[in-house]
Amino acid sequence: MNGNRFGRLFQVTTFGESHGEAMGVTVSGCPAGLELSEEDIQRDLDRRKPGQSKITTSRGEPDAVSIKSGLQDGYTTGTPIGMVIENKDARSGKYEPFITAPRPSHGDFTYSAKFGTRNWGGGGRSSARETVNWVAAGAIAKKLLAREGVELKAHVNQIDDIEAPAVSFAEMVEHSEENPVRCGHPETAEAMRERIDEYQEQGDSIGGSIEFRAEGVPVGLGAPRFDSLSARLGQAMMAVPATTAFEFGLGTEATTWTGKERNDDWEFDDDGNPVPVENDHGGIQGGISSGEPIYGEVTLHAPTSIPKEQQTVDWETGEEKTEQVIGRHDPVLPPRGVPVVESMLALTLVDFMLLSGRINPDRVDGDVGEYDTDYHPSSPRNE
Amino acid sequence: MNGNRFGRLFQVTTFGESHGEAMGVTVSGCPAGLELSEEDIQRDLDRRKPGQSKITTSRGEPDAVSIKSGLQDGYTTGTPIGMVIENKDARSGKYEPFITAPRPSHGDFTYSAKFGTRNWGGGGRSSARETVNWVAAGAIAKKLLAREGVELKAHVNQIDDIEAPAVSFAEMVEHSEENPVRCGHPETAEAMRERIDEYQEQGDSIGGSIEFRAEGVPVGLGAPRFDSLSARLGQAMMAVPATTAFEFGLGTEATTWTGKERNDDWEFDDDGNPVPVENDHGGIQGGISSGEPIYGEVTLHAPTSIPKEQQTVDWETGEEKTEQVIGRHDPVLPPRGVPVVESMLALTLVDFMLLSGRINPDRVDGDVGEYDTDYHPSSPRNE
Amino acid sequence: MNGNRFGRLFQVTTFGESHGEAMGVTVSGCPAGLELSEEDIQRDLDRRKPGQSKITTSRGEPDAVSIKSGLQDGYTTGTPIGMVIENKDARSGKYEPFITAPRPSHGDFTYSAKFGTRNWGGGGRSSARETVNWVAAGAIAKKLLAREGVELKAHVNQIDDIEAPAVSFAEMVEHSEENPVRCGHPETAEAMRERIDEYQEQGDSIGGSIEFRAEGVPVGLGAPRFDSLSARLGQAMMAVPATTAFEFGLGTEATTWTGKERNDDWEFDDDGNPVPVENDHGGIQGGISSGEPIYGEVTLHAPTSIPKEQQTVDWETGEEKTEQVIGRHDPVLPPRGVPVVESMLALTLVDFMLLSGRINPDRVDGDVGEYDTDYHPSSPRNE
Amino acid sequence: MNGNRFGRLFQVTTFGESHGEAMGVTVSGCPAGLELSEEDIQRDLDRRKPGQSKITTSRGEPDAVSIKSGLQDGYTTGTPIGMVIENKDARSGKYEPFITAPRPSHGDFTYSAKFGTRNWGGGGRSSARETVNWVAAGAIAKKLLAREGVELKAHVNQIDDIEAPAVSFAEMVEHSEENPVRCGHPETAEAMRERIDEYQEQGDSIGGSIEFRAEGVPVGLGAPRFDSLSARLGQAMMAVPATTAFEFGLGTEATTWTGKERNDDWEFDDDGNPVPVENDHGGIQGGISSGEPIYGEVTLHAPTSIPKEQQTVDWETGEEKTEQVIGRHDPVLPPRGVPVVESMLALTLVDFMLLSGRINPDRVDGDVGEYDTDYHPSSPRNE
Repeated sequence: MNGNRFGRLFQVTTFGESHGEAMGVTVSGCPAGLELSEEDIQRDLDRRKPGQSKITTSRGEPDAVSIKSGLQDGYTTGTPIGMVIENKDARSGKYEPFITAPRPSHGDFTYSAKFGTRNWGGGGRSSARETVNWVAAGAIAKKLLAREGVELKAHVNQIDDIEAPAVSFAEMVEHSEENPVRCGHPETAEAMRERIDEYQEQGDSIGGSIEFRAEGVPVGLGAPRFDSLSARLGQAMMAVPATTAFEFGLGTEATTWTGKERNDDWEFDDDGNPVPVENDHGGIQGGISSGEPIYGEVTLHAPTSIPKEQQTVDWETGEEKTEQVIGRHDPVLPPRGVPVVESMLALTLVDFMLLSGRINPDRVDGDVGEYDTDYHPSSPRNE
Repeated sequence: MNGNRFGRLFQVTTFGESHGEAMGVTVSGCPAGLELSEEDIQRDLDRRKPGQSKITTSRGEPDAVSIKSGLQDGYTTGTPIGMVIENKDARSGKYEPFITAPRPSHGDFTYSAKFGTRNWGGGGRSSARETVNWVAAGAIAKKLLAREGVELKAHVNQIDDIEAPAVSFAEMVEHSEENPVRCGHPETAEAMRERIDEYQEQGDSIGGSIEFRAEGVPVGLGAPRFDSLSARLGQAMMAVPATTAFEFGLGTEATTWTGKERNDDWEFDDDGNPVPVENDHGGIQGGISSGEPIYGEVTLHAPTSIPKEQQTVDWETGEEKTEQVIGRHDPVLPPRGVPVVESMLALTLVDFMLLSGRINPDRVDGDVGEYDTDYHPSSPRNE
Repeated sequence: MNGNRFGRLFQVTTFGESHGEAMGVTVSGCPAGLELSEEDIQRDLDRRKPGQSKITTSRGEPDAVSIKSGLQDGYTTGTPIGMVIENKDARSGKYEPFITAPRPSHGDFTYSAKFGTRNWGGGGRSSARETVNWVAAGAIAKKLLAREGVELKAHVNQIDDIEAPAVSFAEMVEHSEENPVRCGHPETAEAMRERIDEYQEQGDSIGGSIEFRAEGVPVGLGAPRFDSLSARLGQAMMAVPATTAFEFGLGTEATTWTGKERNDDWEFDDDGNPVPVENDHGGIQGGISSGEPIYGEVTLHAPTSIPKEQQTVDWETGEEKTEQVIGRHDPVLPPRGVPVVESMLALTLVDFMLLSGRINPDRVDGDVGEYDTDYHPSSPRNE
Repeated sequence: MNGNRFGRLFQVTTFGESHGEAMGVTVSGCPAGLELSEEDIQRDLDRRKPGQSKITTSRGEPDAVSIKSGLQDGYTTGTPIGMVIENKDARSGKYEPFITAPRPSHGDFTYSAKFGTRNWGGGGRSSARETVNWVAAGAIAKKLLAREGVELKAHVNQIDDIEAPAVSFAEMVEHSEENPVRCGHPETAEAMRERIDEYQEQGDSIGGSIEFRAEGVPVGLGAPRFDSLSARLGQAMMAVPATTAFEFGLGTEATTWTGKERNDDWEFDDDGNPVPVENDHGGIQGGISSGEPIYGEVTLHAPTSIPKEQQTVDWETGEEKTEQVIGRHDPVLPPRGVPVVESMLALTLVDFMLLSGRINPDRVDGDVGEYDTDYHPSSPRNE
């Protein structure tokens, strides 16, 4: 197993290395009848792509997606959606010094130790470039979720010790894409930006965190025990490169809350359905969605690629040496991590929508009871 | 999918409800040739079982495991190990009030909403009692890991705001089982114990956290990307009932560390192999184990079952009402959570040991090259 | 992987050896709300159990199933259904000679060679006794399918060279359980019975085949390509012990049919829906069910356990020797194989019913849109 | 699930439609260190490609594979191998009449009925063109198997009622690629060729079968029960387009063999290991490979695309009509099916080689015990 697959019914399979010919992702299990175009996907790819601002790497990648299969007349057909994104601006030369002299805290050593070799250009398979595939798949998941009334968003809520105050979902949506830091609180974004610049000037990098939120999630997603919604979100988010912590609901703060404080009493809503009076539980109870918004946080450590001099060893020559990772690198990860976190959230939720029968696995309209001649034209002539 | 399965090659499948006739777990994928007895498993079950002390529920469960299959002459055979643990002290009566009036922040509502019904006695399938199955399976995983030199342990490092100072692996092993809180630092354990008593007397409960550590983990466990060691640990740990956060390495603290601070330089060990000079990376680089100890932390919120009066609604009668969850409940979860966390850690690691070829999937000695007549006697007559 | 799991959404996990303490099977993924009792399962177990007639082994197993979990008030809850069947009449002594001297064409050698050991009593894990688990799981699948209008049946259509003429589904249902051979054509059954007696008297055994048929299968089951309905039926049926061939539709006869002969033209049915005029395609087109009955055939070789003297070697002593497998064995497999084949057919179809959204994975009535208080009582008080 | 995945550890994921922009396949789980080039794959693609002779479709596809990832310096890296094959000669126009008027016994109706739409050009996803992906993946599997001493081959052993006499593995290898029918018996090949011509001249098509054989398969592949080698081969082969029967060993002939006749006695080989004196069991006992050659047969029905006039209905206009599938079609499937069958055999075997620890999942040389600096150069400079 190569770790390149995600999802049980909404299945993502990826390939590609940072400096290889192309990145690619196949999405299987997307039901038929979803209107889909390359533009739908490109929108999110552009949010993740390098070169957006001074605080992202200057690598010049258009990240243009090409859909190779799975569509008919602009709608999904229920068969695999193959997508390819070509790599255009790979410059492997500067990675030669690291071939046998691993960069500190990178995947250089562990990949080589595990496999006895590795694709070393630009970090190869271990590069965060690979998340371009996740975002392409996530864009499809988001579109499918939106059709069902599920909306989700992430933003950067902390850089170093600068923490954004609580923002509403609406604020997160409105403001987080207006500033290069992708923080939903504009003033904090400005302070974060300055802090990042400071570290960048020092040839260093810094950590931060991303807050995510999903609204409109129906009751009943998640399976008991090992496949609880929180467990699967845990896997999804901990897979995001550089993640060292995943929290949902109160997160680590739950240590100091009493049961009485944290428990959410029940009341009736206007339709007479039981609803919790608060949402300290983070939208998940017993591993299953409660109908309340799902929210949580992901911590991303500082980028390991820094211009500052570091110590390493060359396992081939047996020499100790210093090295500098000079090149095109992000001084902080959360800003470009936002669409990645959103994608993993979307992929996890859409999978559970299918697993719980909320979305029909064959057709988005769920009508599989009889043969459907009108539903969706098989041919442009019918439109 | 019922969420009752864990593991890709070392596969765990569970059944059972809190007040049902029995709990059960089938372990598939354990190689042949591992010496195994019910005692090996009972040892860990006894650490998890109720009634150990005043700070655990007084439910009287012997939790006696019976192995139904998978052994020959005291050794595993490579075929499924079926285990059953009978429930002896179920008293469902006191759960009747909650059938249609969900307890705050429990799984009562979400299970009923998802399935339209639920096994309600003692919380049914949503009860943490189900982790008895995990611990039984984990005991086998631990034994297999120990054979390969992998040792692991967890202890309670925080209750409310009382945090234990850093302890070594040796201290964790030596002290954590000496006190009912399962904290590896005896003085802190005492303070934690007092704090728990206070909350218990108030009819309330409190949160806490568990620290885990694995030593002797070989380089190379974990697959790139979605199946990284950290991602799979994330799923494993977030599945532990009441968990709201998972951290490894620096965890949430990584937000304020710079790249230079967090990066671990490389040096040669005495054998001339590259090793990191520190372990701020938590034993995982690029999603793959680095050979350094793996450590992390899990936050468990306060138990939701508390004697204090709470508000709820009855969806059948349409009435708002108050309820008290009087009975046999833990005032804090981490002490009994320790063997559960250890089990999930063990199950995750052993699975990767198989996936990376470190443990042979057919036989523990790995010799599958020729027909083996001496290796392990097929019959007691040969011993 | 131990090969003890079947199904993607309707998941079966088994344990147990022929002479072990108990057999067991956990069914995960059965939706909530299916009325279910031990009697529903026992009915099929009784059809598979030994000692039914002179042409089945005389081993005295009641094969009494005990459901340990997954029910509330006689209905499934959507959580795992654990079942245990105790072994009562194990007599391992006579298997001692085979511990290191493998019986011809049994699994004795391959199990020991693979695992370096094996559970040898009664054939251990390799014994067809293990199919008791399959039939228990299959009985649940059948009940769920019947609720959706899918009916299925198998019968013995050939023993040695005695072949039954074509029988209708109704005849298969009506007659196949009236005679010990389980052939849907009574006169042929009589001839088969005599032939079996002849071989049994000679201390030998004989092969045969089972025909299966499913009616009422909706259009649209099966996924394109690797998970086509025919591919998954292929796996399911080839897993049946002693199976050497699987055919559907025309089977091996298709070699001599031209395209024009085999192709089924289209016409409209009374409701104006396209239907094929014939069913030479066996109910599957492009790997997906066409709405026509699904039919096929499975060949089972002669039982390998025969009283006749055979040659073997003892790998421990290095001696060549003769051996006789005297004991309680079936002279022919298809009669007891009928419920096994039906079970595998049912498990395959129900899995696709879930995968294609025909059956809701959470609740059998498919209503997951709103919280359901009336649907199924959570408590006996409500009945 | 889209049915586009095969394999547990050696994982294949495909995309693409007959007349889409490109076909694609990602192979995950191939260990590092296998020398691999596009030529290795092209060789088998050329055997499957259209336009090889008069008895294959004249569609002009170069079927040129492009490897997009997974290599370093000509060796696999243990990370996903992404491959893309562009479609060059798609002419969809002639498929317009079938959009809403399904071709007899094709997947036109079932795909549209399941998904409410379909990619209709050239049969879209249901076209056998998709097997180009399987052959590309299979070529890698074959290369890996050859390294371990496992050789496999298939040939056409029957067309209509013309059956080839038994041929040895050597003959199969030597002769089957010399004639356009791909029969290992040259004289029979000639007769088959004439028979095919006759049907083609009549505007009709005909069925046939393929025999396969694997030599050098080690003892111990296959898991007990549901994942027996025969069960997984059953799935693999029944997934081959147009397959209606799968047999291994004696196949359907086993009905008339007695236990005594079919059972294979044991003797010692020259090294003192137990070996069966014959191989009527087809290389699999108890679901696990015995070390003897594995052999079997697959029946492929006649191609459904024929020039002869057939009856159909248009579900949109409500009209009954006749149609002719005039174009570029194969009059018989087995000749081009040979590399497809070989691929599925190779994919199944290589998966079990990994599952049983015969091939190390990380590196082909199996040495994962220590960090390997010499093993395989990470850089061209080291060669």
